[in-house]
Amino acid sequence: MATAPSVSYSITVRLEVPASGTAVSQLTTAVESSGGSVTGLDVTASGHEKLRIDVTIAATSTAHADQIVGKLHRIEGVTIGKVSDRTFLMHLGGKIEMASKHPIRNRDDLSMVYTPGVARVCMAIAENPEDARRLTIKRNSVAVVTDGSAVLGLGNIGPMAALPVMEGKAALFKTFAGIDAWPICLDTQDSDEIVAIVKAIAPGFAGINLEDISAPRCFEIEARLREALDIPVFHDDQHGTAIVVLAALTNALRVVNKEIGDVRVVMSGAGAAGTAILNLLIAAGVKHAVVADIQGVVHSAREDLVDADPESPLRWIADNTNPEEVTGTLKEAVAGADVFIGVSAPNVLNGADVAAMAEDAIVFALANPDPEIEPGIARETAAVVATGRSDFPNQINNVLVFPGVFRGLLDAQSRTVDTEMMLAAAGALAGVVGEGELNANYIIPSVFNDKVAGAVAGAVRKAATATT
Amino acid sequence: MATAPSVSYSITVRLEVPASGTAVSQLTTAVESSGGSVTGLDVTASGHEKLRIDVTIAATSTAHADQIVGKLHRIEGVTIGKVSDRTFLMHLGGKIEMASKHPIRNRDDLSMVYTPGVARVCMAIAENPEDARRLTIKRNSVAVVTDGSAVLGLGNIGPMAALPVMEGKAALFKTFAGIDAWPICLDTQDSDEIVAIVKAIAPGFAGINLEDISAPRCFEIEARLREALDIPVFHDDQHGTAIVVLAALTNALRVVNKEIGDVRVVMSGAGAAGTAILNLLIAAGVKHAVVADIQGVVHSAREDLVDADPESPLRWIADNTNPEEVTGTLKEAVAGADVFIGVSAPNVLNGADVAAMAEDAIVFALANPDPEIEPGIARETAAVVATGRSDFPNQINNVLVFPGVFRGLLDAQSRTVDTEMMLAAAGALAGVVGEGELNANYIIPSVFNDKVAGAVAGAVRKAATATT
Repeated sequence: MATAPSVSYSITVRLEVPASGTAVSQLTTAVESSGGSVTGLDVTASGHEKLRIDVTIAATSTAHADQIVGKLHRIEGVTIGKVSDRTFLMHLGGKIEMASKHPIRNRDDLSMVYTPGVARVCMAIAENPEDARRLTIKRNSVAVVTDGSAVLGLGNIGPMAALPVMEGKAALFKTFAGIDAWPICLDTQDSDEIVAIVKAIAPGFAGINLEDISAPRCFEIEARLREALDIPVFHDDQHGTAIVVLAALTNALRVVNKEIGDVRVVMSGAGAAGTAILNLLIAAGVKHAVVADIQGVVHSAREDLVDADPESPLRWIADNTNPEEVTGTLKEAVAGADVFIGVSAPNVLNGADVAAMAEDAIVFALANPDPEIEPGIARETAAVVATGRSDFPNQINNVLVFPGVFRGLLDAQSRTVDTEMMLAAAGALAGVVGEGELNANYIIPSVFNDKVAGAVAGAVRKAATATT
Repeated sequence: MATAPSVSYSITVRLEVPASGTAVSQLTTAVESSGGSVTGLDVTASGHEKLRIDVTIAATSTAHADQIVGKLHRIEGVTIGKVSDRTFLMHLGGKIEMASKHPIRNRDDLSMVYTPGVARVCMAIAENPEDARRLTIKRNSVAVVTDGSAVLGLGNIGPMAALPVMEGKAALFKTFAGIDAWPICLDTQDSDEIVAIVKAIAPGFAGINLEDISAPRCFEIEARLREALDIPVFHDDQHGTAIVVLAALTNALRVVNKEIGDVRVVMSGAGAAGTAILNLLIAAGVKHAVVADIQGVVHSAREDLVDADPESPLRWIADNTNPEEVTGTLKEAVAGADVFIGVSAPNVLNGADVAAMAEDAIVFALANPDPEIEPGIARETAAVVATGRSDFPNQINNVLVFPGVFRGLLDAQSRTVDTEMMLAAAGALAGVVGEGELNANYIIPSVFNDKVAGAVAGAVRKAATATT
């Protein structure tokens, strides 16, 4: 699939061109004929004979950006200077910082912010630990914890290389929900150690956002931390995704006028996200679900499941889906299904597979960057299509969920996060799309819709308050 | 010792008084006759018959503030409303926050700060881990780590009650040195666990500031972390204090015109700070030191030391001090000494003890809030006196040191912090007091002297660069 030029592969090229002649106009032509897009052009210095120009260009990949620079180089009279990458420039020195809320200008300020005044505040908390939520950062702080084992689609790149993602997440927490999040990147992938560490750092935080931890370790780590801690623990890759999927499915079903309890759902992928989605869909009323992984449809009698650990996630799937004990391949299962949800790998379905689904089929092809089926092809026969991509309608994006969920949990001073709260979040997110707005290309609002975080937060706060 | 009213015990009292008559003028008189001090008086609403006034009052303690409010209550016609405590108000919701450096307003911003653009930055770091110092917050971030076992003079109040101190520390790091510090308050006091946790969280930070961890555990924890990590680990209660003491002693010796290699130094206290001070003084050239703890002068033949662990801090002190094998009490050792340094307990010396010291004696009585000897009394016979208190000249305050030390370490991308760097920091701090400024009441600059952090940082950066 040809991708459009993107600002995330944007470069700024400093070059010199002759002041007279057609070199300047040739620049834009050269970029556009190479498939790039000029998004800015500034003359930064001008003389009688030469102009110095900074051209900002969106490309489709790093290699493409290099090609474009090569093409500019071949224009007569043009000298190429520094080439800078906008995304890398934005990351220089990191994307977040710590700020003091109060100026410390003199001894009076110092004596309140620090010693001796701070001692009275410490003693108040020692006497009444609940006061920590009133008198410290705990109230509004979330730890974004990763071990770098499953970062984006990049795999096990380790804690240091994961840091830019965690910083980005922290920036989104602040931007969309006013939450103070700090990245904690762990130099261990031992589950026992991770559990012990997160337990130990919990006093300074009001919530733990686990991020990019590989399955099946993430299930155990989350479960043990939820058991041990008195603050909510939320693995966004699982539950954030599940909530957005449920919200989108709710609205997609409204579009095709089907009931959640009636539809046949086929899922591709039984990893962290798949398992969480399945859990939440069942809680929301899905009765007919079939899951396929790389070995085909999951059923109780499948060879690798007969002797599986009864606590294993795959065993749980076998026990809670596929009541008809369907066997075979994903493609076989998809035939006649109402809903396909893919959180697996590129191109596992083709147009004929989608055409074989039930009438008014719903296809969520969420593998990133390359979906389970090309969305344009799916749309030829399916009634509603969603992907994880930003260049197609109906983007399933966790940013719609995690800021509002944590805002609600923090506002309620919740000690847990449970399925009721997640259902409430999904309902609120679906509800942001009004009856008059709903259609097959708008089942989920934009990340930049300013009603989203507040609606999700309000619903979660209410559900959390009801729980306590 | 009568303490002056302090803003750290400052309250704001909202009250109503009759518009006519002398009630308003009686307010100030009542406060001042009770030993308080009116630092602000605002009429916040006015009517024909009543005035609503907010009076801000500095007291000497919480009990004293209550007394003053009682006295105001007894003025005829005065109605007392809400009484608020300025220090607590300043702590509401915490003292620090996280901020995003870039606005995230649209999909272009999002695609650079987060996915998909961030993936390229992650891959760059995965390929070259050193790039983390260029492209992430690591470069400028310090973890302020405590287990809450020895907080200020308050003792073992635990991690949650320690949080206000750690926030204050983080605020000072930013204010004085532009460093992004985040508090990590650990819910464990097991040394092995603390070492494992700090090792694990290290990838996201360029330095570790250990804080308020009790002795002797702090020695082992610091030593093991320094061995394990490739970023500097600095226990401020030890080394911050040691650096300020050495700087102050350097200048005090200039005042009395004595050489560091010649003076007899007697120390009271063999805890975390005492041991670190002794270490640094010896590295700086002190040859004649005697240390006393609660059991008297430390010497090799002392009963509790004969069979002591050869690795124990007290054994180290016995082996590296007191070459003349002096025995007896602190008071006996102080007689004839040139320098007394107390990091122990209130009132262990009296005026006669100081009078029995050598001519031009130097007394650093650093126990807080009540020093080893009343500074006014010490000053009757000693040539130079310093304390930890802010209401007496020559305050020994770690804030003079830790921001600059870490600024220098971070700027040098140092992997360690060693004695040479600490000696450099002490030299730079002493050097901020110019020849023309130096006198017995000004051996150390103010915390708010804006040359301090830069001078310390520059010296540490230079020493760290020389080490690498």
